[in-house]
Amino acid sequence: MSRKIALIDYYYLTEERQRRIRETAARGGFEVVYFKSLDASRGHLEDFEIVFGAMGRRTIREAVSCRWFCAGRVGINTICDESLYADPSVILTNSPGVHSVSIAEHLIMCALMLLRKQYVYAEPMRRGEWDLEQRKIGSLLGSRITVLGTGSIGTAFADRARAFRPAVITGIRRDPSRLNPSFDRIAGIDELNSILPETDILVMCLPETDESVGVLSAERIALLPAQAFVMNIGRGSAVDQDALVTALQEGRLAGAALDVMTPEPLPADHPLRKMDNVILTPHIAGIPNLDYTNDMIVNEFCEDLARYIDGRPLKYTIDRSRRY
Amino acid sequence: MSRKIALIDYYYLTEERQRRIRETAARGGFEVVYFKSLDASRGHLEDFEIVFGAMGRRTIREAVSCRWFCAGRVGINTICDESLYADPSVILTNSPGVHSVSIAEHLIMCALMLLRKQYVYAEPMRRGEWDLEQRKIGSLLGSRITVLGTGSIGTAFADRARAFRPAVITGIRRDPSRLNPSFDRIAGIDELNSILPETDILVMCLPETDESVGVLSAERIALLPAQAFVMNIGRGSAVDQDALVTALQEGRLAGAALDVMTPEPLPADHPLRKMDNVILTPHIAGIPNLDYTNDMIVNEFCEDLARYIDGRPLKYTIDRSRRY
Repeated sequence: MSRKIALIDYYYLTEERQRRIRETAARGGFEVVYFKSLDASRGHLEDFEIVFGAMGRRTIREAVSCRWFCAGRVGINTICDESLYADPSVILTNSPGVHSVSIAEHLIMCALMLLRKQYVYAEPMRRGEWDLEQRKIGSLLGSRITVLGTGSIGTAFADRARAFRPAVITGIRRDPSRLNPSFDRIAGIDELNSILPETDILVMCLPETDESVGVLSAERIALLPAQAFVMNIGRGSAVDQDALVTALQEGRLAGAALDVMTPEPLPADHPLRKMDNVILTPHIAGIPNLDYTNDMIVNEFCEDLARYIDGRPLKYTIDRSRRY
Repeated sequence: MSRKIALIDYYYLTEERQRRIRETAARGGFEVVYFKSLDASRGHLEDFEIVFGAMGRRTIREAVSCRWFCAGRVGINTICDESLYADPSVILTNSPGVHSVSIAEHLIMCALMLLRKQYVYAEPMRRGEWDLEQRKIGSLLGSRITVLGTGSIGTAFADRARAFRPAVITGIRRDPSRLNPSFDRIAGIDELNSILPETDILVMCLPETDESVGVLSAERIALLPAQAFVMNIGRGSAVDQDALVTALQEGRLAGAALDVMTPEPLPADHPLRKMDNVILTPHIAGIPNLDYTNDMIVNEFCEDLARYIDGRPLKYTIDRSRRY
């Protein structure tokens, strides 16, 4: 029986990208089978050694012979339960760097839309008005930016924000001794409470882990100054969302840009839906709708596939107990 | 009779900024008179040697003793008629660099909103939907950017766009022999037609001059590829607006961001008002609603005022025959 790789599409596996995977797979004698969606793969996964692409908890359970699952995305917190896997040696990898360009551009766009009060102009211009009332707006120039999570996304954001000449970009990470030249300074999570009062823009780029859940608590929201904006592209669970809503309603925060919320989809009548100074997007900041992102997902999988064929350790392996 | 300076406010001359002007003026023995608006100054300007701030054609005509008009803004095309002035030696200056930060941030914001199809998400999220339909979006990464006008605004934009790793940033200027390190290459206006077919984002930062009127003609719009975006923050007259509308309606352009139009205000029922892929703003990209901008306007005036007092040439003098 030949060794088999399942490709489960999430709309981005073009012929050309499939061809690149097949070329790498052929070196290891693998047969490649393409499924056009998660639904199409259902009930067909039991004899695959490698599964790449779209996957959920059922995918992991069904692919009983699989030795390596490669999720073609960053967030894997929902598929980290060890009980889903046939044994602990089954490898799970993700594609950690692929969304960083798209998400960094999303973050810069949202920061400028909030600072410049773009929401004030959009609808009146559609309605036929010409509103020249003067409003004080803000700028990235001279702003104090704090980034929670200094991985590839936080770093790509900082590299772009730098060009706008902020006063300071602080990166917050678990291990502050690891340097990252994209930030003016790196601080540990234990220093966060002293940095929040001096933050104009708080950017949250954290995966969902035991430590990240609720990290932006009501107490920490209260430490931010009234002109501050909160942007979250990691996981909704990192924010005390009710406390955020209250702070926005009471004018203790200037605005927010949320690509992730709790729950998703957000209820249709949720108060965040109606706030002018809140930019909501349906968890799309990093979704692979950019050619660059899709190419990177396939490139990183092909890199790891070549390592797998050669018996070398994979580059993007997840520690399921830590969920990243 | 003492020498007098009139300050005509356009909402930004705070006590602190007035104080800085008065300090510089005192060195030359000038009396400073503050008018809270253009209307408040009407009929009171005949014995002022210097007029700073808000001004229109009537201001110039009324201030018959004035030797130096300093418009606290960039665009001065409406007050360049030589017939408005008592004699050709009367100086007109503007504040050329002051809006560049605000406008550059506006341009980056608009480019990202267009590339990422932000308009697709905004309204559905307000209405309570959660639209996960996949759409192909674009990125500044790898994009080909062409900037018409390489003055302080075009340069500030290029400096920020650079951080997003575009394929190339081309600056178009009258005199291509003048280098500008913010651009990958500088080309003359005579090369524009060969550059437009290889442009993804066209940024127009031109003052209104005889040469800039109609520079983006119907023929040139037709040279742009279908995925191209046009952004204009200079003057509406630089674009054949009807041809732009037709190209957008026919899908020959991907979108536009217009802070300037013809006429302004744009008629309430103008087709541009209703296009999803057009971002309209009411000529506010550079309006001094940013503290930084307001400080710069006052700083540049104080610099020139010190030069005036010392009998040195002013830095920001306009050639009225060329209108810039």
